[in-house]
Amino acid sequence: MSDPQTLRFADRLNNVETSAIRELFKLLGKPGIISFAGGFPDVGLVDVDGIRDATLAALAHEPAGALQYGATEGYQPLREQLAAFMAGKGVQSLAPEQLLVTTGSQQGLDLLGKTLVSPGDKVIVEGPTFLATIQCFRLYGAQLVSAPIDGDGVQVDRLEQLIVEHRPKFVYLIPTFGNPSGATLTLERRRRVLELAVKHGTLIVEDDPYGDLYFGEPPPPSLLALSEEVPGSRDWLVYCGSLSKTLSAGLRLGWMIAPPALMAKAVMCKQFSDANSSTFAQATAAQYLKAGRMDANLSRARAVYAERARTMCDALHTELGEAFDFVAPKGGLFVWGRLTGAHGKLQDSQAYAQRAIEQGVAFVPGVPFYCERPDPAALRLSFATSDVDKIREGVQRLARAL
Amino acid sequence: MSDPQTLRFADRLNNVETSAIRELFKLLGKPGIISFAGGFPDVGLVDVDGIRDATLAALAHEPAGALQYGATEGYQPLREQLAAFMAGKGVQSLAPEQLLVTTGSQQGLDLLGKTLVSPGDKVIVEGPTFLATIQCFRLYGAQLVSAPIDGDGVQVDRLEQLIVEHRPKFVYLIPTFGNPSGATLTLERRRRVLELAVKHGTLIVEDDPYGDLYFGEPPPPSLLALSEEVPGSRDWLVYCGSLSKTLSAGLRLGWMIAPPALMAKAVMCKQFSDANSSTFAQATAAQYLKAGRMDANLSRARAVYAERARTMCDALHTELGEAFDFVAPKGGLFVWGRLTGAHGKLQDSQAYAQRAIEQGVAFVPGVPFYCERPDPAALRLSFATSDVDKIREGVQRLARAL
Repeated sequence: MSDPQTLRFADRLNNVETSAIRELFKLLGKPGIISFAGGFPDVGLVDVDGIRDATLAALAHEPAGALQYGATEGYQPLREQLAAFMAGKGVQSLAPEQLLVTTGSQQGLDLLGKTLVSPGDKVIVEGPTFLATIQCFRLYGAQLVSAPIDGDGVQVDRLEQLIVEHRPKFVYLIPTFGNPSGATLTLERRRRVLELAVKHGTLIVEDDPYGDLYFGEPPPPSLLALSEEVPGSRDWLVYCGSLSKTLSAGLRLGWMIAPPALMAKAVMCKQFSDANSSTFAQATAAQYLKAGRMDANLSRARAVYAERARTMCDALHTELGEAFDFVAPKGGLFVWGRLTGAHGKLQDSQAYAQRAIEQGVAFVPGVPFYCERPDPAALRLSFATSDVDKIREGVQRLARAL
Repeated sequence: MSDPQTLRFADRLNNVETSAIRELFKLLGKPGIISFAGGFPDVGLVDVDGIRDATLAALAHEPAGALQYGATEGYQPLREQLAAFMAGKGVQSLAPEQLLVTTGSQQGLDLLGKTLVSPGDKVIVEGPTFLATIQCFRLYGAQLVSAPIDGDGVQVDRLEQLIVEHRPKFVYLIPTFGNPSGATLTLERRRRVLELAVKHGTLIVEDDPYGDLYFGEPPPPSLLALSEEVPGSRDWLVYCGSLSKTLSAGLRLGWMIAPPALMAKAVMCKQFSDANSSTFAQATAAQYLKAGRMDANLSRARAVYAERARTMCDALHTELGEAFDFVAPKGGLFVWGRLTGAHGKLQDSQAYAQRAIEQGVAFVPGVPFYCERPDPAALRLSFATSDVDKIREGVQRLARAL
């Protein structure tokens, strides 16, 4: 008879720890805090009227499709709309059947972990990368390896060395407006990543939740779009898309595109994870895309985020000067940078986060975004959910805290 | 350099095989087929008007809650409504904070596998049990052990022997109107299961998607409701609920109630699986429950399913007689039975399924519902989605096929 007070958990839980930033987030409820800490888009930019109309259309025209179980692969009208959406972004010859509708990009990662990672397998990620990616893959027993990045994305020479050294199950990248880095992989480096995939027979996972949120010129084509120019690379490429930052995070919808053998396994795993993504949400999204409102919606979001990003970058230059080094992002939701320690200022971002909270402003220290060799001076600021006055005031508070 | 044609999948995929009934389902598209094969509720019974009103209310009154990311634990107004719903079913002293909102009961099972099962761990399930449960747990490396059932649910003496012998991580039961068995665990056996949990320090998982769909008297209280009468048993009990069979499967919403230590781990795992269940669906469900339409909705569904079940059982007695042995279900969606071979008739349900398809009627052979020692004579019939005329005609076809 076992100790009746003790539940025995799975060994895989020993690979993760409660998020280091959870304690910080508890402080955000403090009145008057200006938060640059979140990773969320601005819900104020969501096209509520458009979503309402889309839901009404779905319930009027396809109630059985919207309210019943559906195919694990996804609701066919949404798969068709998403294939057309991707075609608009340069991904030609994509059949709707090549898309698996997920409950967001995060589920795509979970399915990749489940289908590909055995305990002890290596996975290469960017250093820094998305927090929840690190934990998601570790829960499947992955040993993560960090590939260094700069303002132009992952350093490809170093990436190739790491691939040769570690022979990873796959390489996970956020090539466009990365989280947390804000960095965008250059066209030249994109080509080289695809060539590496073919040369070494290494699967590349492109996570692309932010690519539509550019401020000026569109970013370089996605690895997926570019794969048509690099023979054989499509066989080594997985793409994860999301409607969370463009339409609404509340729908919990994304999609995954993968080589057929992997797609079949991912569909099977999803069947036993959640049967299918909400058909209610899928039918709503399909009607929304069909109504043609996405372009105007994205234009509006791009303009708002661009202004907020510019305001934050200008204020950081003015208020923090040489004490904070960063590359202005060309899209996405984040400014990533590091405390330089110039003029004897603080260089530890975790200590700085505490001081900032006391001054009424919050951000996320950089350490948890690294799977190894964290940079204690790095930090992430989100400009997504504050208006420009709040952003200026928040950066002034950051200056006071330094 | 690896073979560029070969992806290396995770070892855990070796534990499952493509569903044995998948091929059968492909035949269901044949024109004129009457299908008793599905596991779905009847979408024609869904309260489309009520869901539309609920969505409009959610978007009008709480757009930010419905369209943004939300807490992994669940949308608080829905947790409150679900706690009240459970209180109406005899579960007192349940705080909303003790409920985790999932994307359906299936995700509850997935989270249990992820948090509790290390490769090689034993899990006891009913023989027969839900197909997708078997595959879900096997993907986490569980070794499944089958506890025999009869018309009164799991045989408790045998269950205790198996617990002592195998020391399982947990025991998974569908005590009320089981899938596929249709069986309902008696009150006396329910008490004994809870006592076993305490005596042996064994976690019991109660999956309860069908408990609201009773035909006459309500079923015995859930294990969860009954746990208040068996000291200590609540510490060893997990409950998985679902709105899929009562409100709409398209929302993909369910909930899990578990001891606090397990709940905390499940929330962490869900965070890295899908961040949170769709707040759009959650806010809609919360408004629906708040509007008080569930009672009338359930009354209507119970009456329709009861008539269909009665029609099917009567027709089976009349048309198949001694050749098919079954216990009439008191709720749920399924009739489970076995070919007796009486009068020299066929006794292999897989061969029978093929013949039935030729006669224009489909059902699911019983074999895939067993994790071990399958009964080749067993089969499952669903009366949920056919009207009474179709049911009578379908059973006549079954008789012709025999």
